[in-house]
Amino acid sequence: MIRVGIIGATGYAGEELMKILMRHPYVRITYLAAKIDKEQPIDEIFPYLKNRLNLKCEILDTKKAVSKADLFFLALPHTVSISVVPLLLSHKKKVIDLSADYRFKNTSVYEKWYKVAHKDKANLKKAVYGLPELYREKIKKTDFVANPGCYPTAAILGITPSLVSGIVNKDSIIVDAKSGVTGAGRKASLDFFYSEINEGVKAYKIGSHQHMPEINQELSSLADKKVDVMFCPHLIPMNRGILETIYMKLDKKINYAKALDIYKKFYKTEPFVRIVEGETYSTKSVLETNFCDIGLKLNEDKGLLIVISAIDNLLKGASGQAVQNMNIMCGFPEESGLL
Amino acid sequence: MIRVGIIGATGYAGEELMKILMRHPYVRITYLAAKIDKEQPIDEIFPYLKNRLNLKCEILDTKKAVSKADLFFLALPHTVSISVVPLLLSHKKKVIDLSADYRFKNTSVYEKWYKVAHKDKANLKKAVYGLPELYREKIKKTDFVANPGCYPTAAILGITPSLVSGIVNKDSIIVDAKSGVTGAGRKASLDFFYSEINEGVKAYKIGSHQHMPEINQELSSLADKKVDVMFCPHLIPMNRGILETIYMKLDKKINYAKALDIYKKFYKTEPFVRIVEGETYSTKSVLETNFCDIGLKLNEDKGLLIVISAIDNLLKGASGQAVQNMNIMCGFPEESGLL
Amino acid sequence: MIRVGIIGATGYAGEELMKILMRHPYVRITYLAAKIDKEQPIDEIFPYLKNRLNLKCEILDTKKAVSKADLFFLALPHTVSISVVPLLLSHKKKVIDLSADYRFKNTSVYEKWYKVAHKDKANLKKAVYGLPELYREKIKKTDFVANPGCYPTAAILGITPSLVSGIVNKDSIIVDAKSGVTGAGRKASLDFFYSEINEGVKAYKIGSHQHMPEINQELSSLADKKVDVMFCPHLIPMNRGILETIYMKLDKKINYAKALDIYKKFYKTEPFVRIVEGETYSTKSVLETNFCDIGLKLNEDKGLLIVISAIDNLLKGASGQAVQNMNIMCGFPEESGLL
Amino acid sequence: MIRVGIIGATGYAGEELMKILMRHPYVRITYLAAKIDKEQPIDEIFPYLKNRLNLKCEILDTKKAVSKADLFFLALPHTVSISVVPLLLSHKKKVIDLSADYRFKNTSVYEKWYKVAHKDKANLKKAVYGLPELYREKIKKTDFVANPGCYPTAAILGITPSLVSGIVNKDSIIVDAKSGVTGAGRKASLDFFYSEINEGVKAYKIGSHQHMPEINQELSSLADKKVDVMFCPHLIPMNRGILETIYMKLDKKINYAKALDIYKKFYKTEPFVRIVEGETYSTKSVLETNFCDIGLKLNEDKGLLIVISAIDNLLKGASGQAVQNMNIMCGFPEESGLL
Repeated sequence: MIRVGIIGATGYAGEELMKILMRHPYVRITYLAAKIDKEQPIDEIFPYLKNRLNLKCEILDTKKAVSKADLFFLALPHTVSISVVPLLLSHKKKVIDLSADYRFKNTSVYEKWYKVAHKDKANLKKAVYGLPELYREKIKKTDFVANPGCYPTAAILGITPSLVSGIVNKDSIIVDAKSGVTGAGRKASLDFFYSEINEGVKAYKIGSHQHMPEINQELSSLADKKVDVMFCPHLIPMNRGILETIYMKLDKKINYAKALDIYKKFYKTEPFVRIVEGETYSTKSVLETNFCDIGLKLNEDKGLLIVISAIDNLLKGASGQAVQNMNIMCGFPEESGLL
Repeated sequence: MIRVGIIGATGYAGEELMKILMRHPYVRITYLAAKIDKEQPIDEIFPYLKNRLNLKCEILDTKKAVSKADLFFLALPHTVSISVVPLLLSHKKKVIDLSADYRFKNTSVYEKWYKVAHKDKANLKKAVYGLPELYREKIKKTDFVANPGCYPTAAILGITPSLVSGIVNKDSIIVDAKSGVTGAGRKASLDFFYSEINEGVKAYKIGSHQHMPEINQELSSLADKKVDVMFCPHLIPMNRGILETIYMKLDKKINYAKALDIYKKFYKTEPFVRIVEGETYSTKSVLETNFCDIGLKLNEDKGLLIVISAIDNLLKGASGQAVQNMNIMCGFPEESGLL
Repeated sequence: MIRVGIIGATGYAGEELMKILMRHPYVRITYLAAKIDKEQPIDEIFPYLKNRLNLKCEILDTKKAVSKADLFFLALPHTVSISVVPLLLSHKKKVIDLSADYRFKNTSVYEKWYKVAHKDKANLKKAVYGLPELYREKIKKTDFVANPGCYPTAAILGITPSLVSGIVNKDSIIVDAKSGVTGAGRKASLDFFYSEINEGVKAYKIGSHQHMPEINQELSSLADKKVDVMFCPHLIPMNRGILETIYMKLDKKINYAKALDIYKKFYKTEPFVRIVEGETYSTKSVLETNFCDIGLKLNEDKGLLIVISAIDNLLKGASGQAVQNMNIMCGFPEESGLL
Repeated sequence: MIRVGIIGATGYAGEELMKILMRHPYVRITYLAAKIDKEQPIDEIFPYLKNRLNLKCEILDTKKAVSKADLFFLALPHTVSISVVPLLLSHKKKVIDLSADYRFKNTSVYEKWYKVAHKDKANLKKAVYGLPELYREKIKKTDFVANPGCYPTAAILGITPSLVSGIVNKDSIIVDAKSGVTGAGRKASLDFFYSEINEGVKAYKIGSHQHMPEINQELSSLADKKVDVMFCPHLIPMNRGILETIYMKLDKKINYAKALDIYKKFYKTEPFVRIVEGETYSTKSVLETNFCDIGLKLNEDKGLLIVISAIDNLLKGASGQAVQNMNIMCGFPEESGLL
């Protein structure tokens, strides 16, 4: 049993972490904090936690936090993690940061897209990008994981087998993403007022979303040459779920069976990636789970491979994956708390 | 053709007024204003108005407004109308105020429930409560209408025939209301964040909603004795529509046919009230219309009459009724622009 | 570890049972059956079960079922359970029936409301009504539980403390219920077509819903005299959740603190009933949980007590409660699999 | 004033036609029919039409229909129109068919995709594809219009200016479409049960939707060479609206301003196509209107043009466009009834 703390407990990712960790067999939640005005029982903030989690949500104080837990999840807004991570790491704590602050190897990319200087390059070098399907061995050995973004998780898992097997043209990749609303975080914005979202679908940040350079960093690293996808996100009226429809031109003449085989082999031993076949592909299959479901459609005439990748943005796209990373870092069975 | 102005054009009621008035045969929209930082074409604020309404939305300036239109709709937050109404009326303009500012005959009730002093008692006396089904003759003769609230419209229309015919016990009335989200107005509040509303139903302001004294004022006036209903509103995940399920103890032994007859006779000549019969009663029947649909269920054993009253909160509950009032005030056919 | 079977695995309640039981520490799902045309792997029917539940869903054959499990959940349409229960019980199996078939002590009530003759009066006598908060001791000792309906669970839990403490008038009870759509079961009906439900709220079966006699049976038994509530259900556009707003006239002059105290004492040791206080009461607090949350509002002037009772219709209203009953019947910790 | 009949009045397109035509200044609805068991007042089928449309919906009998109206809208399931059209045309009626039956110049394409033989090749030759922006002059002169499908309307309007101006590679076109649920028609299918659709997004008929050959026929005709787009539709949880995100490789080096100019010029005089600019593109802007809104995004580095095309599937995608066609055929102002 280890003691875990959640910093940023009042956002959607924080909530989801509490839900998972309450039923996790190897951990005890011992510390909750957030950027709030005054300390408050967590079940006053979230009445549904009444009789389930008897803890106060404290005003974030990193020095105090240090004594309260062995491992910390940071579910903080981007740029805030940088002010918390150094002290936690210097006290030999394990840290899983769900923000974008430590995802970029190259700080100039971070600084360009998040529009703020990066003040902790030292720890940046230690951070492991927490996508277990690609970096499990590194995650096992690190104390510091930068947990991937929701869109990048679905995109990278959907594209990687095609890219590393060399069947697709790396310059042809288009990712058309559809996301539920919790992906945006919990914020009092008129853009997310119920009736502004309900009964509408909206394309936004076309080719300019901050998750695009994250996808490109990882795919370029895997392909060992510059990959630059077109990423086009859409907001749809539902709470949770991401479906990405990924279009790639084939560089090699292959058929559906072969493509399927490549994907099945690539994820053969993965507990949370499923290669699915069928007439339709829906986020319903992964809702409230840590799975990433990947389906394929190949059009030989057009030389086009379509990959459909579906996750629950708050689980495999955030808190579920963070717990998966914790399980790997701590030597717990990887599925603990996640099935 | 008269010139009309909409003050408070950027809220839900203002938007709906523009939609109705653009296709109204006897009016021309000549003035739009709102509490905004800088003047802006209305189709920049609402892109869907592009090529449909070529007007600027101005910063509210009542003095300037006076020269621009003959009749004004005020779709302003409560307590703001009071700062606009006096000047408009002094210039002999017709005014239809959609706020609560001039609905209460007794300012102490207003002041108690809206928590602000009333500074225009002079004009309050002139204001006619704009429920055409009850006050059509007064509306014909006035220049100043206080447009009813959404919940009160459905409640008063649903209860009145029973109350004035003396079949129900005036002390037994319970109104259980279910409303879509636009009833709350357009505001950047976390309470109305899409995923806070979606997939949930919520009881709020039980017995303490500011529309309760409005219902009571009107019913007491009709019954000529104090009526004090229990009003319990609920927020449900949809954009528009109000369904009120009203429970009343019978004072007289009557059957369903008799009750139905009372309601049909009461609203016999009304263009926008329909007495409906069926197994289910839904807001779908009145969505995007100015109708109030009323259904009845009578339980003789229990001596209980249940009235179901349905409106579109933005139409019969706000802007549609405001236009109905304008039609009456101006001598236009009452259905103009509303069918 | 016991072996459990789910008969009727393809409906909403069946699905929910699988989800709970897959993570239950003391059981193993060993048998799935449904009224289907041919045997099929369950993960073909529900793709989200891929890699999670490796079982076939068989064509229901009670004789075959007998050898496959020790305890059976029946999530069958009403009137079908009667054809399955006798054989299972005769083989000394434990049975939890989620249908209405064995809920009514008096078969004439069942026959009137479900419009079919009851053909198994023998086993009816053995059935215990599975509301643990009222009948835990009987549930402990029985092999056969009739699991309550969703609406009755929320209603009976909300009303009972008031009724047995004698503070309310038993003839004054009105239950205004709002339910999500899964309460209706999974069926190909035009009434439940997405766009018929979305953006609307509907009152249906007013005073004539088949759950009304179930509520009345239980309340009458508790009060030891005939109780006859007015039950008025509404369908709202959401997947899960029931909120019941219950209006009761007070027979005794009490204040809020006293009422609260009665409820808190009544449910003091209950693991799944929470007495909640606040300005709003929402199904969000119980979504995806087995809790019943109960809030109170008392209006002393009107002598009216309002109780708001919220459950997740598929959990405390169906499958969660069924598992709670299993835990009690089998001597497992009552919360097993449910937190 | 002309007399119009609606055949297939009980589906979504039929309903929408009634709503538009009731307020159309130059027509009177004189005939309603559908495949129903017995004649019934239309306001019994759709209670919201009470006091608004006093007509019976008859059992379809083409011979009888002939005497009742001058122009007919056919809102029938695919393959049914063929049994109605010949007689109507032989009686010199004007006909606007909303089904796919007369959209394909080449019957073998129709027969392949709709899996039925085409039995009226004679009239097929007369049919004009009813996209006013492309075929207005032909529509003016014909008595028989084949009204386009919803997806094709948005796709063809979005692609045409790029294609005919020669800026894009005709073999590179990908259409990623997102649609509300009414696009599927009103049918009692488990796939469209409320909770199967709500809280999920689904890709379906990827590269195999019957609207794909319709898009290809029109684009090939415009380009005067074979165009074969990849069409990938998605179903999202909302009632109405289609957003298509269209990806095309540039064949010529152009910038955003030039692309915008091409689109603005192409649709310069069109009453129902708007070229919009902004950071987001949403179906909200066209909801309940007959507009098609088109936005552009150009990535010069990648040589990629992204076009976002939005319509209301029941209006510009079906009934609104049908009325626009009627207005053109009858010499009414083109916007009549549609603003």
